[in-house]
Amino acid sequence: MGNEALAQATAAFSRDGSSAATGNVVSSGKSRFRGLGVHELAITGGFWQQKQQLNAESIIAHCEQWMERIGWLANFDLVAAGAIAGSHRGIEFVDSEVYKLLEAMAWELGRMPDAALEARFDAIVRRVAAAQSADGYLNTSFGHPGEPARYSNLADGHELYCFGHLLQAAVARIRTGHDDLLVSVARRAADHLVAEFGEDGRDAVCGHPEIEMALVELGRALDDRRYVELAALFVERRGHGLVDSGSKGSVYYVDDLPVRDARVLRGHAVRALYLAAGALDVATEQADIQLASAVAEQWSNTTRARSYVTGGMGARHEDESFGLDWELPPDRAYAETCAGVASVMLSWRLLLTTGDDKYSDLIERTLLNNVLASPREDGHAFFYANTLHMREPGRVVDETQVQERADSGMRAPWFSVSCCPTNVARTLASVSCYFATADGDGIQLRQYGDYDVATTLGDDKRVSMSVRSGLPFDGGVDIEITGERPTEFTLALRIPAWATGATVTGPDGEDVPVAGSQATVRRVFQPGDRIRMSLPTAPKIIWPHPHVDANRGQVAVERGPLVLALESVDLPSSVPFDDLELDLAATPRATTRGAIVTMKMVAAALDAEAPYATHEPAAREFGSVDVELHPYSEWANRGPSRMRVWIPHRPIDSP
Amino acid sequence: MGNEALAQATAAFSRDGSSAATGNVVSSGKSRFRGLGVHELAITGGFWQQKQQLNAESIIAHCEQWMERIGWLANFDLVAAGAIAGSHRGIEFVDSEVYKLLEAMAWELGRMPDAALEARFDAIVRRVAAAQSADGYLNTSFGHPGEPARYSNLADGHELYCFGHLLQAAVARIRTGHDDLLVSVARRAADHLVAEFGEDGRDAVCGHPEIEMALVELGRALDDRRYVELAALFVERRGHGLVDSGSKGSVYYVDDLPVRDARVLRGHAVRALYLAAGALDVATEQADIQLASAVAEQWSNTTRARSYVTGGMGARHEDESFGLDWELPPDRAYAETCAGVASVMLSWRLLLTTGDDKYSDLIERTLLNNVLASPREDGHAFFYANTLHMREPGRVVDETQVQERADSGMRAPWFSVSCCPTNVARTLASVSCYFATADGDGIQLRQYGDYDVATTLGDDKRVSMSVRSGLPFDGGVDIEITGERPTEFTLALRIPAWATGATVTGPDGEDVPVAGSQATVRRVFQPGDRIRMSLPTAPKIIWPHPHVDANRGQVAVERGPLVLALESVDLPSSVPFDDLELDLAATPRATTRGAIVTMKMVAAALDAEAPYATHEPAAREFGSVDVELHPYSEWANRGPSRMRVWIPHRPIDSP
Repeated sequence: MGNEALAQATAAFSRDGSSAATGNVVSSGKSRFRGLGVHELAITGGFWQQKQQLNAESIIAHCEQWMERIGWLANFDLVAAGAIAGSHRGIEFVDSEVYKLLEAMAWELGRMPDAALEARFDAIVRRVAAAQSADGYLNTSFGHPGEPARYSNLADGHELYCFGHLLQAAVARIRTGHDDLLVSVARRAADHLVAEFGEDGRDAVCGHPEIEMALVELGRALDDRRYVELAALFVERRGHGLVDSGSKGSVYYVDDLPVRDARVLRGHAVRALYLAAGALDVATEQADIQLASAVAEQWSNTTRARSYVTGGMGARHEDESFGLDWELPPDRAYAETCAGVASVMLSWRLLLTTGDDKYSDLIERTLLNNVLASPREDGHAFFYANTLHMREPGRVVDETQVQERADSGMRAPWFSVSCCPTNVARTLASVSCYFATADGDGIQLRQYGDYDVATTLGDDKRVSMSVRSGLPFDGGVDIEITGERPTEFTLALRIPAWATGATVTGPDGEDVPVAGSQATVRRVFQPGDRIRMSLPTAPKIIWPHPHVDANRGQVAVERGPLVLALESVDLPSSVPFDDLELDLAATPRATTRGAIVTMKMVAAALDAEAPYATHEPAAREFGSVDVELHPYSEWANRGPSRMRVWIPHRPIDSP
Repeated sequence: MGNEALAQATAAFSRDGSSAATGNVVSSGKSRFRGLGVHELAITGGFWQQKQQLNAESIIAHCEQWMERIGWLANFDLVAAGAIAGSHRGIEFVDSEVYKLLEAMAWELGRMPDAALEARFDAIVRRVAAAQSADGYLNTSFGHPGEPARYSNLADGHELYCFGHLLQAAVARIRTGHDDLLVSVARRAADHLVAEFGEDGRDAVCGHPEIEMALVELGRALDDRRYVELAALFVERRGHGLVDSGSKGSVYYVDDLPVRDARVLRGHAVRALYLAAGALDVATEQADIQLASAVAEQWSNTTRARSYVTGGMGARHEDESFGLDWELPPDRAYAETCAGVASVMLSWRLLLTTGDDKYSDLIERTLLNNVLASPREDGHAFFYANTLHMREPGRVVDETQVQERADSGMRAPWFSVSCCPTNVARTLASVSCYFATADGDGIQLRQYGDYDVATTLGDDKRVSMSVRSGLPFDGGVDIEITGERPTEFTLALRIPAWATGATVTGPDGEDVPVAGSQATVRRVFQPGDRIRMSLPTAPKIIWPHPHVDANRGQVAVERGPLVLALESVDLPSSVPFDDLELDLAATPRATTRGAIVTMKMVAAALDAEAPYATHEPAAREFGSVDVELHPYSEWANRGPSRMRVWIPHRPIDSP
């Protein structure tokens, strides 16, 4: 979809974009900024188009085929036929994967209509709709003959979590201009939830947050305050011990503290991040500054001491949870793909609320280095956990089987809890939604790539432009104002935190000053005006905070927005992977997509039968080797490998 | 029990000690060395007496009272009354805790007869015996009306594991000179197992090894080869996928490889260590050098790259399992108390087989720094996991409640899986069994403390001595030959690996040369002859192997055999715990029980909103503080605290 189609699409929508079908992942009339949806900003080429094509051509179909093959879709048919008793396939909450697939399809259809995909989408929606009860309840694992009763296991049954993803799929549909069967299913489901869990209903919450942001978004999309109010109830109820937490403890369920009293995210990372995102949605709708501030502080404290250099969140395999401050082991990083998706969702909401590009920086870091690390380059296998250090080459996966465990070493096609592939699918289909924002009379470009923008500022100020960039590899960004007539507006360009020495040249060849994280041009733009940015992507050494014990004596290397990794497949087999130290005296040299660094080979064995001794290990350097580091997100695409993001270093003044 | 009582006790037993009631934890006629049992070596004072008294006076009663209070003992009564249906208390394998308590009581009665304890022991045995089925089966969770069928969940039901602990309790009873009800219960149980799982029975193994060493030991104690042969079957069956491993995978159950093919321990640490110990017992009985060598290699590779400086094994909370080589995070160390107990059991068996004091070194390290870290100084609370780094002060435990989780910060009185308290109890009651060995005409002292030895070498060579030492704090060891007449024998004294510069003085004041890990005196000893050892316990800096990334830039401090720890309760509140670096230019000074070190306070904050940045953190030193490090095993005895074993260091040449 080029500028012309975009212009047609967006012309049909209301002016402030707050509740109309601009195709946006988040859309509130009460945010300071609004995002530009898939009908206002279209990816036209380059890195992101390749990712969206991978999603359209491989990932979405992959997810659909797996869920058909192993009966997760058929669960709905069995419910509709009254035959689910004893025949349900998969764990309790596999419905949610079907809904995330529908959401992915809805966004994909929104950005790029496709009759065949539309037909597949409709077919799944019909199967889902057929399983809905007369009162709006919908779940294939509970509430039918032979199954546990509805809401009999709110802590771990994930019924409201599933409803949340159903509602989010419907929101995607509404935002992309439809009011069809899925929307009516969602509306009936939401009405059921209001009746069941509203003020006079059950005083309960779901063990896994998700419903909160879904209800707010559906409330926004359908302009129905009851849904927003129910979301607010769920947020306020949390942290008062309503979850029957059993042996996992209330922290796991993020039920240990009221949201507005918490200062940092903790417990199960995806739950904590979804809850924070939902709480911010509620805060935005209710102008609840105290709640919004609490979430912002949680983001800051979590990012400051509980996030990986890849953007990954959730340090512990145990409980898939956040660790304590500074507990960030590279080799046991969980950094679940879904936590990365959730982190992007939270940061985006904070960006819309504040305009602060520190959120854009984390979105970029997380998308490129955590979320995109999940799918294999062919789109048919995924990382669930995204470790930053692989000590032994990963186990080759039997790709005909559902994996029971989230292994870190090799991507797998499907999991018994397969949240990550579908989360990747819905994120890639809607990823352009995170690229730019607008306010009264300005456009703010937050991420760069090849895309066209066409939107309306204020009541009727039509603005359009095309953006071209070789990022994330090449740091040049060219922006050309398009459209038919001169228009006055403010164009704000994010200068990424990594882009030290960035320069911006305005339409008249003038230097545009970079102030903090933005360069701003306000003028009457003429069609054909060009703004050029140069964002230096030279490789850089990244140092860890001294409190991160697991990173002591190690550095990472970034190249532009990309975290690089050392992979054993790039080393001659004679080079001992465990005995390499980055030579800081040799400046890393950029390659097309990575960087060449010099590694010292250091025989540093300890003369001991244990991993400790009473003497300092004597290190003997026996050579050096130049090796190319590649983007972390691409690791393990060439077979089992050892890998490090944080690399031991040899100080410059060392012998 | 002094020398006289010891002499009486041991005089009644057969000469080679291989199958008689010398009171030994492991007793094979086929080992190169035999241990000295509780009837041959009695602790008379000092550090270890204090620990045994704590066990006798607090821990054993504590365990008994908890299991009575929460119905784990009553499970047996319910089975006997035919009323267990729907009334079983606790998880499936709580019987094993009752058996470990019985084993602890049996050892305690063996070392120190006590009519009241004997009565309590008898009462529990009667309750257990009443629950045994006519065919010898005994388990309160399976096989009775209203319960799952016998052996219907071999992977996770732990029935054979429970039998194993029953048999081990009976072995303790036999070895301490009894053939009573518990022994007959165990004999019937073992006969049942032979019928059920023998050559013609079920081709199966238990998900949790333990039965292997129990069967060998019972076979030795009762001189019944059938039990040894069944143990051998269980060892050989393992590693062929007989465990229905489900989502945890076969590694967790140590069922991924045949024992004799494995090169390192992996999977669930306690399971792996118990299996290795049982396999070595089988190898010893069957003179299977290949199997014994495999276990010895597993020990070496595990100790070399998968063990903590505390002796702790099992790096991961997830699955309570070993990590990969060099994966030894201090802050997430699991290092379960039971894995420490199991490691001591394995090392002891290897020591008996080889005489190599590297095993004694690890036993000492593990007992003092891992197993003894578990019980609180009052014996009423226990660590399950033994972390080496606590980032935040532990949570105060509600001591009226059973804990669902193995928290690392504060000891707790009881757990839903409460293996650790009873394992500590049985280990402390029998700890003297790990102190010395004998062979044809020599005694080898392996551990030091205050104890008396009286035994018989060969057919009739009576040897006795008293040993006095202030260890683990003071490194002086005085040995006095006792008895009534001159006796020629070889006295071998272990020189611990930590005791650099040890000196030994013989009966005539002569220097006894230290050769490797031993000093040996062979002569005709006269009653009254004294040998004096001086084992330097000066504090030492301990360096990590460079492959242990989590320890980079950090050192530990040991004092004699004790690993020391830095605790925040020893620092003024004004000193920032996270910003301390050990000053290596200042030599640690020994205190009575610890060491005073100088810590530099270093403001090393990174100017970033994330735990990484593009610049090296600038460290500003703003003072220093002297602080006493205390034995790691005593940490958290003074309330919630932050703690580090591995401490960041400031190089000597640093500004």
